[in-house]
Amino acid sequence: MTEKIGILALGHGSRHPYNKEVVTGVAELIAKKYKNVVVRTGFMNMNTPTMKEGLDAFKGTGVSKIIAVPIFLAPGVHTMEDIPQILGISKDSRKTSIKLDGRDVALIYSEPLGVDELVAELAYKRATEAISSN
Amino acid sequence: MTEKIGILALGHGSRHPYNKEVVTGVAELIAKKYKNVVVRTGFMNMNTPTMKEGLDAFKGTGVSKIIAVPIFLAPGVHTMEDIPQILGISKDSRKTSIKLDGRDVALIYSEPLGVDELVAELAYKRATEAISSN
Repeated sequence: MTEKIGILALGHGSRHPYNKEVVTGVAELIAKKYKNVVVRTGFMNMNTPTMKEGLDAFKGTGVSKIIAVPIFLAPGVHTMEDIPQILGISKDSRKTSIKLDGRDVALIYSEPLGVDELVAELAYKRATEAISSN
Repeated sequence: MTEKIGILALGHGSRHPYNKEVVTGVAELIAKKYKNVVVRTGFMNMNTPTMKEGLDAFKGTGVSKIIAVPIFLAPGVHTMEDIPQILGISKDSRKTSIKLDGRDVALIYSEPLGVDELVAELAYKRATEAISSN
């Protein structure tokens, strides 16, 4: 990625603080690890910033593309229907264009986390931590 | 981990196939990557095996400890209240003992996935995949 891109980390939201804490914490780690990326968050329900506020928060950053990444483990009604509708993205194209600072910026919708060795590795790490503290 | 341990990968369950697919897929990757571990799955709702059936599925494997790992992104009512209750684990001790093949086997409850660099890395990977396919 040579151009300046944005990642909008999308959270479910919750009346408890934990979902927002995890999504915000992950967003901070992305920003820390990948210096070329501008990271913002947006929540579907119950927390702020909303997803639309999250998109607005890219104003003034100069990003030429925004990738909306659902920080959800598995696909479901939220990732397949609710979020595309909120973002104004067709379920088939997974892409649209938004206006930001008077420019057209591509908004691309990624898959959720899903099955990956990184999740397997993290689950194993949580298991070893639990053994160590018991 | 020199002793033979079991990991019970816990899923939320869903009327859609995706949650089970992700939890099962992650469980398979754990088993493939960590050969010293016996991995089983158990679901809270709507899918089988149930969590109790998942525990029973360690019969005959010779594990001396089972770590129940919630394949959930964030803590919440399910990980903090519902699942400990199903597993018969006190919320404070995070540990109990079950009978398996007539032996006492420790059952330890881990934290969910939570904030971790591995999740940040995976979210970034999903973003780059979305750019490549658009």
